[in-house]
Amino acid sequence: MSEGTIRVVIENITPSIDDGRFPIRRAPGETVSVEADVFADGHDEIRATLLVHRGQPDTPLQWEEYPMTPVGNDRWRACFAITDMRRHKYAVRGTVDRFATLSKDFLKKLAAGEATRVDRDQICAFIEKVCETAPAHHRQSLKTYIEKLYRSRDLETIPSILEQKPLQDLMAKYMGKHSFVTEPSPPLEVDVMRFKARFSSWYEFFPRSTCSGKRGGTLQAACERLPEIAGMGFDVVYLPPVHPIGVTDRKGPNNTLPARTGDPGCPWAIGSSEGGHKAIHPELGTLEDFRNFVKKAKDLDMEVAMDLAFQCSRDHPYIDSHPEWFSWRPDGSIQYAENPPKKYQDVVPFNFETSDWKELWNELKEVTFFWMDQGIQIFRVDNPHTKPFRFWNWLIGEAKKHDENVIFLAEAFTRPKVMRRLAREGFAQSYTYFTWRNSARQMRDYLVELTETELAEYFQPNFWPNTPDILPEFLQIGGRPAFVIRLVLAATLSSCYGIYGPPFELLVSDALAGREEYLNSEKYEIRDWNWDEPGNLKDLVSRLNAIRRENKALQTTRNLKFLDTENENILLFLKESNKGDNLLLIGISFDPFMPQSCHVNLPLDMLGIDRNQPYLLHDLLGDEKFVWQGETNILGFDPAVLPARIFRVHRRMRREEDFDYFM
Amino acid sequence: MSEGTIRVVIENITPSIDDGRFPIRRAPGETVSVEADVFADGHDEIRATLLVHRGQPDTPLQWEEYPMTPVGNDRWRACFAITDMRRHKYAVRGTVDRFATLSKDFLKKLAAGEATRVDRDQICAFIEKVCETAPAHHRQSLKTYIEKLYRSRDLETIPSILEQKPLQDLMAKYMGKHSFVTEPSPPLEVDVMRFKARFSSWYEFFPRSTCSGKRGGTLQAACERLPEIAGMGFDVVYLPPVHPIGVTDRKGPNNTLPARTGDPGCPWAIGSSEGGHKAIHPELGTLEDFRNFVKKAKDLDMEVAMDLAFQCSRDHPYIDSHPEWFSWRPDGSIQYAENPPKKYQDVVPFNFETSDWKELWNELKEVTFFWMDQGIQIFRVDNPHTKPFRFWNWLIGEAKKHDENVIFLAEAFTRPKVMRRLAREGFAQSYTYFTWRNSARQMRDYLVELTETELAEYFQPNFWPNTPDILPEFLQIGGRPAFVIRLVLAATLSSCYGIYGPPFELLVSDALAGREEYLNSEKYEIRDWNWDEPGNLKDLVSRLNAIRRENKALQTTRNLKFLDTENENILLFLKESNKGDNLLLIGISFDPFMPQSCHVNLPLDMLGIDRNQPYLLHDLLGDEKFVWQGETNILGFDPAVLPARIFRVHRRMRREEDFDYFM
Repeated sequence: MSEGTIRVVIENITPSIDDGRFPIRRAPGETVSVEADVFADGHDEIRATLLVHRGQPDTPLQWEEYPMTPVGNDRWRACFAITDMRRHKYAVRGTVDRFATLSKDFLKKLAAGEATRVDRDQICAFIEKVCETAPAHHRQSLKTYIEKLYRSRDLETIPSILEQKPLQDLMAKYMGKHSFVTEPSPPLEVDVMRFKARFSSWYEFFPRSTCSGKRGGTLQAACERLPEIAGMGFDVVYLPPVHPIGVTDRKGPNNTLPARTGDPGCPWAIGSSEGGHKAIHPELGTLEDFRNFVKKAKDLDMEVAMDLAFQCSRDHPYIDSHPEWFSWRPDGSIQYAENPPKKYQDVVPFNFETSDWKELWNELKEVTFFWMDQGIQIFRVDNPHTKPFRFWNWLIGEAKKHDENVIFLAEAFTRPKVMRRLAREGFAQSYTYFTWRNSARQMRDYLVELTETELAEYFQPNFWPNTPDILPEFLQIGGRPAFVIRLVLAATLSSCYGIYGPPFELLVSDALAGREEYLNSEKYEIRDWNWDEPGNLKDLVSRLNAIRRENKALQTTRNLKFLDTENENILLFLKESNKGDNLLLIGISFDPFMPQSCHVNLPLDMLGIDRNQPYLLHDLLGDEKFVWQGETNILGFDPAVLPARIFRVHRRMRREEDFDYFM
Repeated sequence: MSEGTIRVVIENITPSIDDGRFPIRRAPGETVSVEADVFADGHDEIRATLLVHRGQPDTPLQWEEYPMTPVGNDRWRACFAITDMRRHKYAVRGTVDRFATLSKDFLKKLAAGEATRVDRDQICAFIEKVCETAPAHHRQSLKTYIEKLYRSRDLETIPSILEQKPLQDLMAKYMGKHSFVTEPSPPLEVDVMRFKARFSSWYEFFPRSTCSGKRGGTLQAACERLPEIAGMGFDVVYLPPVHPIGVTDRKGPNNTLPARTGDPGCPWAIGSSEGGHKAIHPELGTLEDFRNFVKKAKDLDMEVAMDLAFQCSRDHPYIDSHPEWFSWRPDGSIQYAENPPKKYQDVVPFNFETSDWKELWNELKEVTFFWMDQGIQIFRVDNPHTKPFRFWNWLIGEAKKHDENVIFLAEAFTRPKVMRRLAREGFAQSYTYFTWRNSARQMRDYLVELTETELAEYFQPNFWPNTPDILPEFLQIGGRPAFVIRLVLAATLSSCYGIYGPPFELLVSDALAGREEYLNSEKYEIRDWNWDEPGNLKDLVSRLNAIRRENKALQTTRNLKFLDTENENILLFLKESNKGDNLLLIGISFDPFMPQSCHVNLPLDMLGIDRNQPYLLHDLLGDEKFVWQGETNILGFDPAVLPARIFRVHRRMRREEDFDYFM
């Protein structure tokens, strides 16, 4: 028999991931809207309170209280803002509000002509009880109210006393003991990440392809590319692994064996006699060069994202020093990576089932910390779905203790529940299925899943139109308009996106026959790009990134509202900033070949646009302006010009006195 | 750093109510279909196992194991049957299946012409490792397989060895140590109730109205009604409270004050100088008479359901003996029940916030046990939603310990989440919103909610077309057809239903003006019914209850499948028994005034009916027969005859050789 007088029950608190087993994720400045079913038996008035705790350790007195508002069907809601990087916790408390119940009943009786002095005295008696728990000065105030109530011979005057805010506040403050508090269950948690985890524009490139000639580029040469990348408006520069590359079974061009002399090998085949995961490939330069590269990027307001690829080449020093971290076959050979019949002879996976897992985990932590100590705060993790979930939870937790600003991006292209789980375990950003959503309907469905289901609470997508591993069919066949379409989709649908350049901005579309792989991929050879090839997309990329910086509405992913349209080739959506001061209407045609048009029905009332007045749309991408009036208008998209439009919507064009001007 | 080699994760186990805080509910013979997301990193084969534990106390060795089957998208499923009244528990375990992984990889390599002896040896080496954990005789069998594998010079013969069931079974049995088992979270529970909780037909009547003349009936007189009630096919007889009735502020006819001399008072105003909740009203008879009534019912295969109304009249002995269980007003008067401006002057609620709650709870338990000791196993609980949820959880738990067969029906007509919570806390059956769902669309939506959402796991509806508190508008205006419609709906949509008679079968439709209350309600006066009034519904009720007994498909509520139809006045649905040997097609028109017809599209393939052969429909209610062929047919309903049809569908009429007969 637990405490029997507790009558309020609390159910179904949201957001809550897997019943609180995982935290939700937010950035400072964002809010959390908490809801719960809170109710009691009988007809008593009840109250629900949101409790918020910021930071650690758990000092129980630091709970902030936010009254929750009923939103119907016994559901209550309150919001709180994330103020800083501390871990936030939240919980819900329920109480019986005897004072409100007595007051409500009194009003109802009064309205029915049934109120009596005994009813009034009952209220007084309750206030008197509460008095006992109040300190002297507040007790005195409460007693004054009691006297006022007793003096009210005319019962009609009672409500005006009961409604006085100071009385209600004092009662709320001291009623505790008489409220039969339902204490909250263990609190739910918010994993706070910095704003960059929410809003980032990534540029991936191979530093070894930054220099004309046979030997390839170095980190020093790559430095010279940074101003141009910053000029395009990117804020994260992501480098494939920069470590020594193995020689045994090194892959030649287009993933062939054996490599020819001079073939540089695949950067993901990490480790050689020249070092492993903590070393820089001598052909790229020195650790000093790397630190300098990071600094140079920082000077240009960019961060460097490091590739964490936890696997080894056949020549990695670990193989000799820690044979127990690998699997060995009966013939004494090492087990290289394979997913039969596919073989990755140049790569050896760690055996995470080793009894020596603690040492392995610790070493991988050391690798991570080593690069954090070189100034790295962002990691793009290669194939996280082939390492245990528990490992990531632990590693990311440790890394966040080392530096709360660290961000991990999961490069997992795998089954939905595996991707979801990785995000739950701690990855701040995730690769997605964006790359393979090629119709407006597919894209809309996918974005609804990402932004309107529970996923929105912890899964931050990062959209990539291409990667060194993927040259999608759409880009192979659609020409320049296809590149524009995918670029604008990525950069507007998700607040985090990236491109793999120069192949993207140079419109490289040559693939291995029947595959979504680049022909002559940089993964296996050094490419000598003409970074300024005529017809490139650099201007458009620059404009798009500038639009992203200047429009708050594009700096979060959850604020997406799709509009229906009759043309299934066109995706139409609104993005509005939290404060409502930045409203975008974005339209993108999925057809890279033919002009398309559609009707647009704007929800004017919802947007606060007067249907009797004209309003201005400014296409930030094409720099065209339109004046619309009323709900329904027509939009056209010409792939030969621009298959996408990003309108800034100006709700009102001028003050009303200037109105004639537009008629 | 918890055990790092555990790689399988288990998520989202269903059914699970509020993350396992409440049990699901089943009857013996029913099954539980358990699903879970089970997956690991990487490409290893994994296995998911359903663990089932029957009974208490928790002896860890009694877990039964059921292999789960993948059903797509990393979801796994297995079923188990509830065998008896013991509390059942279930959980899910995940393991890495190294043997299956090695076997699968070998097959793939073989298909690609890439398999080598080293691959074979790797399998042998793994079996050898597993050998170590097996007892001698099984170790020997495993070694025999190893030898066979080693002897296979032709690698093509390996698969036939790996696929041998005894080898696979031995590996599954002894691989444990090498499977990196993900142990299940705390198990989920099944609250098992007896079959009557699932399938019951209730008849409610006032024993005091069983005898002509002024003084009213007694329990002895009521006994004489039992054969007639049994004859109508009911198996639960529910009596309003049979305790002494208070005299202070006793209510007169139609809920008026003051009562006239001789007015019998409302049975829910329990307690007088003649006793309280453990006493029988002297006007009804003695405890001996009550026991006799229960026995007489039992002899007729009926159970008596007792009313548990935890409230007191102003004259209840508790008020003197336990004043601390009630609320008192400042003028010294007792707080009677009110929901301003409504007043129930003859009824005093318990104050469950009393500091003396333990004594109060215990006394109410004593009351419950007292009647259980008189042979009562079913309680209909009056207004459970005005007593704390915790109290019910405790009381029902205690009562089930006292007698596992006890069943509680919640008479809660209140907000959805309160009703849901009461069911979660332990009520085996619940009143519902059935009474106010008056269109086919409303009814369908409500039944989908009851049978296809999580509610189906614990909320067993009990449908009542009328109660002493409710004479629905539909019955007031629709005449006999309205009564038939509501009766058939209740008795076919829910496996538990009840009527309040004789007013129901006598088609009583006189209400208080503008209210859904009976005029001259039995709640306040003794009625002198002519139980055999011509034109009554007794024959139809009898037929309906016989149909329910004879058709297993009507003995569970979850097996409901609605069919679409173009006529919005008609509700069409299928009910099929678990084994598929009893298939019903039921059609009910909601129009009590006009004939209605509609097309019926039967999902022949799903039902296993050959579209090229005729099939027979036998209307068990109207005793008409139809021969249909193909998917689409037409059904008509005439309220003047019968606005409902209950077809038994015979999938095949005769053996094929007799086929010509029907053409």
